[in-house]
Formats: sequence, structure tokens, C-alpha cells
Amino acid sequence: MLFHVRMDVHLPPGLDPAVRDEIVAREKAYSQELQRAGKWPHIWRIVGEYSNFSIFDVESNDELHRLLSALPLFPYMDIRVTALARHPSKVD
Amino acid sequence: MLFHVRMDVHLPPGLDPAVRDEIVAREKAYSQELQRAGKWPHIWRIVGEYSNFSIFDVESNDELHRLLSALPLFPYMDIRVTALARHPSKVD
Amino acid sequence: MLFHVRMDVHLPPGLDPAVRDEIVAREKAYSQELQRAGKWPHIWRIVGEYSNFSIFDVESNDELHRLLSALPLFPYMDIRVTALARHPSKVD
Amino acid sequence: MLFHVRMDVHLPPGLDPAVRDEIVAREKAYSQELQRAGKWPHIWRIVGEYSNFSIFDVESNDELHRLLSALPLFPYMDIRVTALARHPSKVD
Amino acid sequence: MLFHVRMDVHLPPGLDPAVRDEIVAREKAYSQELQRAGKWPHIWRIVGEYSNFSIFDVESNDELHRLLSALPLFPYMDIRVTALARHPSKVD
Amino acid sequence: MLFHVRMDVHLPPGLDPAVRDEIVAREKAYSQELQRAGKWPHIWRIVGEYSNFSIFDVESNDELHRLLSALPLFPYMDIRVTALARHPSKVD
Amino acid sequence: MLFHVRMDVHLPPGLDPAVRDEIVAREKAYSQELQRAGKWPHIWRIVGEYSNFSIFDVESNDELHRLLSALPLFPYMDIRVTALARHPSKVD
Amino acid sequence: MLFHVRMDVHLPPGLDPAVRDEIVAREKAYSQELQRAGKWPHIWRIVGEYSNFSIFDVESNDELHRLLSALPLFPYMDIRVTALARHPSKVD
Amino acid sequence: MLFHVRMDVHLPPGLDPAVRDEIVAREKAYSQELQRAGKWPHIWRIVGEYSNFSIFDVESNDELHRLLSALPLFPYMDIRVTALARHPSKVD
Amino acid sequence: MLFHVRMDVHLPPGLDPAVRDEIVAREKAYSQELQRAGKWPHIWRIVGEYSNFSIFDVESNDELHRLLSALPLFPYMDIRVTALARHPSKVD
Repeated sequence: MLFHVRMDVHLPPGLDPAVRDEIVAREKAYSQELQRAGKWPHIWRIVGEYSNFSIFDVESNDELHRLLSALPLFPYMDIRVTALARHPSKVD
Repeated sequence: MLFHVRMDVHLPPGLDPAVRDEIVAREKAYSQELQRAGKWPHIWRIVGEYSNFSIFDVESNDELHRLLSALPLFPYMDIRVTALARHPSKVD
Repeated sequence: MLFHVRMDVHLPPGLDPAVRDEIVAREKAYSQELQRAGKWPHIWRIVGEYSNFSIFDVESNDELHRLLSALPLFPYMDIRVTALARHPSKVD
Repeated sequence: MLFHVRMDVHLPPGLDPAVRDEIVAREKAYSQELQRAGKWPHIWRIVGEYSNFSIFDVESNDELHRLLSALPLFPYMDIRVTALARHPSKVD
Repeated sequence: MLFHVRMDVHLPPGLDPAVRDEIVAREKAYSQELQRAGKWPHIWRIVGEYSNFSIFDVESNDELHRLLSALPLFPYMDIRVTALARHPSKVD
Repeated sequence: MLFHVRMDVHLPPGLDPAVRDEIVAREKAYSQELQRAGKWPHIWRIVGEYSNFSIFDVESNDELHRLLSALPLFPYMDIRVTALARHPSKVD
Repeated sequence: MLFHVRMDVHLPPGLDPAVRDEIVAREKAYSQELQRAGKWPHIWRIVGEYSNFSIFDVESNDELHRLLSALPLFPYMDIRVTALARHPSKVD
Repeated sequence: MLFHVRMDVHLPPGLDPAVRDEIVAREKAYSQELQRAGKWPHIWRIVGEYSNFSIFDVESNDELHRLLSALPLFPYMDIRVTALARHPSKVD
Repeated sequence: MLFHVRMDVHLPPGLDPAVRDEIVAREKAYSQELQRAGKWPHIWRIVGEYSNFSIFDVESNDELHRLLSALPLFPYMDIRVTALARHPSKVD
Repeated sequence: MLFHVRMDVHLPPGLDPAVRDEIVAREKAYSQELQRAGKWPHIWRIVGEYSNFSIFDVESNDELHRLLSALPLFPYMDIRVTALARHPSKVD
């Protein structure tokens, strides 16, 4: 089941660079783990913004919330989720 | 080069159903032609709305505008385009 | 799987009252059929507006879109869907 | 008398984790006490956000404000209240 | 129980003036009947707009929706309702 | 001359509780003084928010600004003023 | 007593040009009559828009609403009124 | 003196195609005349929208309004003007 | 050449009162100097807000930006500039 | 390939002036380097704001994101990118 997710990162200006680097590194590892597991099939950077559009493929709403709220950057992000359905014009 | 596109369709309530069906049929054929050509790799219906999120893969901004403005539903849609870049966490 | 849905009805002012009554009657019958089937467990009127907040309980995003787009009032409504998850403070 | 409530939590990034845990624990206990008393019949997490949609069942507007403003997280939340009425399509 | 209500009237430009006058006359009579019954204790015109701020005093959310949806101008208005509570600084 | 005023209070999270209590106490005293003088005939709490809707009755715009900008909470509030006129449907 | 007023004109596209010209001519005459009477001391066109910013000088809110709602273009305009006070830095 | 202008065209769906073509042809001729005169040095299509970003180079605000309000599409456009100044980082 | 300017002041809550008073005093002196020079012919306080509407009369966009960016409160303000033209109904 | 970019700078009020000056100097040098390389053909100050409208000329979306995210002020800016296409009325 697919969901469209927009994530906007807002790191506080005064955040310690070492803390920041460590969070960002954990975020990357966690994201790649979910991508390899097939849960996060697409992620694109929005040009000019510290933001991404992503597609998640999960079993349920609960699984999606569990995955998103475990993101190391979760406390620093605005996240908007949109449920997706198959489009009638989609070519198989 | 990838672009994220949101399309919201607003057909006028009084539109002749035959005209409507004909436009929607042409829209579907045109969309599938672009999908088969690899120009429109993803299209998802937004649940509960007459809208879609799409990904286009084109050579240039000019090509994207040419493709979008040739959509049979173009006069009846609000379209918002967002340029995408490779995300640094993307797994190959 | 639960979803929160807001529906705002915008019937065109010049709509024939007989047509309007027929659509609204079909909407009511369809809504009650889904309520009895357990798909639409809650519906509340928003005070002062021709709008409702509803909760749907479905198997998938695709099922939800199929149910919503079959609403007789669908062409006259703005619909916004929000995916819901279990709240950690929820009492069983 | 039913009310729809949306709560968005905005904890300051620098909040002491122990203070945070203590507030969140008190919030949970208070919420469950109101749920058990029948005052707060529904609470759902909004997927991807530190937010909830809730339904309150109270005797009056004054009672609702008293309950909401006593939430331990009240100083850290944006709350929006919408009065609900019985929907004419509601199945008993 | 008090509610704050904002009403914005949007009469279609092509409405027959006789129809318009008749609706507005019924609206006035209905409003004055509710004012005399103590249900609609305050109504103020917003300067420069075809809009009002009103205070309603009702027994329940359901009563408020019944009163508002019976307004002759209801199909031509945007209405926003806000639940009010006693203010702690209010002088008796 | 009547004005509708919405006040939204945003006290900084880190404000010293003693300072806060003192400001709030002065605000209450000042508000009650203006209520007793007939300048501030109505004040209602917006349910679920640290906000109020108020009606002021003043001689002039200048008097209203003088009264509002002297509020002890003025530096911590968003205030929106709307000029009111007599409504043609108002019952005397 | 001064008020800042923004007026945005939205004439329906299909309006008969003769009707339009007649309304616009009456609007101009009425505006100039109020300007000469000192009630409407300033009017500026917003560049690129069919809109103006104006300053009105009136005795009361009621007078302002009476003047504005008598504008021949009133049914075709969005009007926003802002109450003005003397600025403490104003040079006499 | 430079101004940034955004124009969004909203042609009514039912407009006679011949009338539409004639207006669009006049718009193009007028635009090219202003471009050749150096008054409209830049015009870009916004990808996916019936809109443009333009730069105008004029002697005064009055000249800009005269040029814009003479656009054949003026009654069908939303126009937003932003005054521009030399940027301190600009390379000559 | 006239411009309409809205300024909204947002002084940080923790600003040293002496620093604040000094900035505000310099702002007032600078504003009065520009008023006396005929560059800033109108300034009005927006009732209930720490904001003003102003009219500037300058030779060019560059001059306006130079004057505004030299305001002592510039780093603490949101400023919105609107270019003005002569209104065709203006009485000389 | 052209892109329209709006940048709004939000430097934190408490930023050390020396740090600020150093960042702004590096921003200017970097901007001028890109201008000289033909990547950033236009930059204009928005009058009254710490903001600019710019035009970038790049080979790809990825190049644009690389250039923008390397701006010394990037962590302190809101950036909005709009893809541009050739306008059909453009004079060569």
C-alpha cells in the first residue's frame, strides 16, 4: 500500500555540528535500511530545499507511523502523508 | 531529469457528459503513450480527490512544458511542478 | 485500517431542486449501506456547514478511493483524507 | 454533546528529556482517565505527525475548555475545536 | 451555551432581484424571531463587507445547527462557528 | 462605537512562572477595570485556545489603540481588530 | 477618524459592456463626490490590479459602512477595512 | 526601473475559441511590440501553468500600470507586481 | 512616485529594554527626518498591532530600498511594498 | 535550462556580527563567481525585503541543487525554485 510523504527538515541554527552530523548519519543509515527492505521505494530531493518527496510501501497506517516516527530527524521535521491509490490510466 | 507534478482536475459541473468522456478517454490514451515512452514513469491517484501525483522524466524544462500543455485535460487542471534532484541517501 | 475524511459539499446554486433531491437521497442510501457494512463507522455534521467529518474503516487505500469516488455527491465535494494510526494513549 | 478536536504538539527542541518524559506520562494518565470517564471517546494518531484527532463528549462548552486547558501538554499544543451535530444520514 | 458565528453572504451576481429581496426579507424576519426568542443575542455588521459576527445562545450543538441551516440565506453563506466559554477575567 | 477584537496569547515557554503570574494578574485587573468602565462590554474565551473574542465600545480608533496597547499582555499577543456597524436586522 | 480600505473589483466576464460602463461611471461620480466632501481623502490604484488602496475620514463605523455599501461597484468588490490610529512618530 | 511581474491567465471555459484566438493573437503582438521597445526585457513561461514571470523596465509606476492594463488578456489575468532594486552582489 | 508600505515589527521578547528604547528612538528620529524631507508623506498606526501603513514618495525603486533598509528597526520588521499609480477617479 | 529562484534570508537576531559579516562576504564572492561563470545570469533585490529574485542557467536539476545548497547563506534561507520554459511570445 503506497503513501506519498513530504518531509521538511528544520534543524535549529544553534545545533552542535557534531550532534547534527551524528543525527544525519543515523538518518541516512536508517533510510537506506528501509529502502533495501522495500519499505521506502523512492526518495527525491526537492531542488533548493532541505526537503524530500518520498514514496512508502507498507502493510498498514500503523506500520507507516511506526517507521516515520522512528526517523532520527523526526523531532526536526514537518511531515505530510498522502494516501495513494492505483491510477486508472496506469500502464502495467 | 525528474520532476514531481501534482495535477488537480476541475471539470465544470455543466460539461456535456459525452464531451467529458471523450476528453477523459484522450487523456488516458495520451498518458499511456507517455508512460510507454518512459516520459511519465509514475502516476498515482490521490485518495478521495480527482487528482494525481506524477513523476516525469524529461530532457529539459521545455520538453516538460510541451508534454504537460498538450494534456487533453490541461485547460481544466491546476498543475504544480517541482524540480527533483538525486537524494544523497538514495540507494542505487 | 482507519482514515479521517472531511467532506465539504458545494452544490451549484442553479441546480434543479428535483435533481438535487435525487442525488442527496442516493447519497444517504449509499452512506447508510456503507455504515451498515462497517466501512463508515462514524459520520458527524460540522455545525453551521454543509460538511461532515467521517471515519472510514477499510482494507486498503484502493478500497477507500473506490468507496469515496462512488459517492453520488463526489463531483460536488471537496474531500480531504488523513491516514490514522493507533494512539499510544488509547484505552482498549 | 460531541466536539471534534485536533491537537498538534510542539515541544521546544531544547526541553530537558526528563521533564519531557514526565509531562508526556502525566498527559497519558490524564487522557486515559478522561477516556475511562467517557469524556474522550475517541483518539487517533495522525500518521507521520505528533498530532491527534479526538472526539470529546461533554455537557457544555465550559466543561470542554476546562478539560482541554488542564492537559499537561496544553502550553505546548495548538488546539482547534469544531462543534459537531448529528448527521441526518447517521444510522442508529 | 454561547457560540461565535461569522456569516459571509455570497449571492450570485445574476440572481433575480425579486428573488433576492424575498430571501433577504425572510432572512430578516427569521433573524428577528430568533433574537426575540433570546437565541441570537448579538448581531453586528462587519464594516465594508456583506458579513456579520453573531453570538448564539443555545441548548446544544444540534440546536445551533438546526437554527443555522434553516436560515433562508444558508445556501448562499459561508458560516464559521466557534465554541465560547466563560472568560476567567469576565466581570459579572 | 463598537469593535470586534480577537486576541491570541503566545507566552514564551521559558518565561519565569512568577513573572508570568504577575503579568496575568495585572492583565485581569486592567481588563476588569475597562469592563466596569463600559469600554470592554464582552469577553469570551475561545474553547481550547489561549485566546479570546472581545467587543470594545470606544469613542475613536485612537482610544481603542491606546486601550489595547496598554494591555500588560500586549507584547505577547496577536491582536486583530474589526470595525463593527449596526446590523439592519438588529432588534432594538 | 481614519480607515484604510482595500477594494478589489471582480466584474463577471460576461457582463454587458454597456451595463459595465454605466456602473463604472456612477462609481467614479460617487467617488469624486465623496472626495470633494472630504470623506475619501486618498485613493491610489494598485499597479497591475483592478484594485485600490484608499483612506476614508468619517465620523463613525456606521458612516463608513453606509458610504462603502452605497458604492455602485459594491456587489462586485471584496473590501477589507482596517482601523487607523495616529502614529507616535508622525510629524505634525 | 525594473519590476517583477507574475501573470496567471484564467480564460473562462466557455469562451468562444475564435474570440480566444483573437485575444491571444493581440496579446502576442502587443507583448512583442513592448519587448522590441525595451519595456518588457524578459518573459518566461512557468512550466505546467498558463502563467509567466516577466521583467518590465519602465520610467514610473504609472507607466507600468498603463502598459499592464492595456494587455488584451488583462481582464482574464491575475497580476502581481514586485518592485526590484539593484542587488549589492550584482556583477556589472 | 508613490509606494504603499506595510511594516510589522517583531522585537524578540528577550531584547534588553535599553537596547530596545535606543533602537525605537533612532527609528523615530529617522522617520521624522524622512517625513520632513517629503519622502515619507503618510504614516498610520494599525489599531491593535505594532504595525503601520505608510506611503513613500521617492525617485526610484533603488531609493526606496535604500531608505527602507536603513530603518533602525529593519532587522526586526516584515515589510511589504506595493507600487501605486494615479487612480482614474482621483480628484485633483 | 532556466530556473526562477526566490531566496528569503532569515538571519537569527542574536547572530554574532562578525560571523554574519563573514558569511555575507562569502555569499557575495560565491554569487559573483557563479554570475561570472554564466550560471546565475540575473539577481534582483526585492524592495523592502532581505530577499532576491534570481534566474539560474544550468545543465540539470542536480546541478541547480548543488549550486544552491552550497550557498553560504543556505542554512538561513527559504528558497523556492520554479522551472521556466521558453515563452511562445518571446522575441529572439
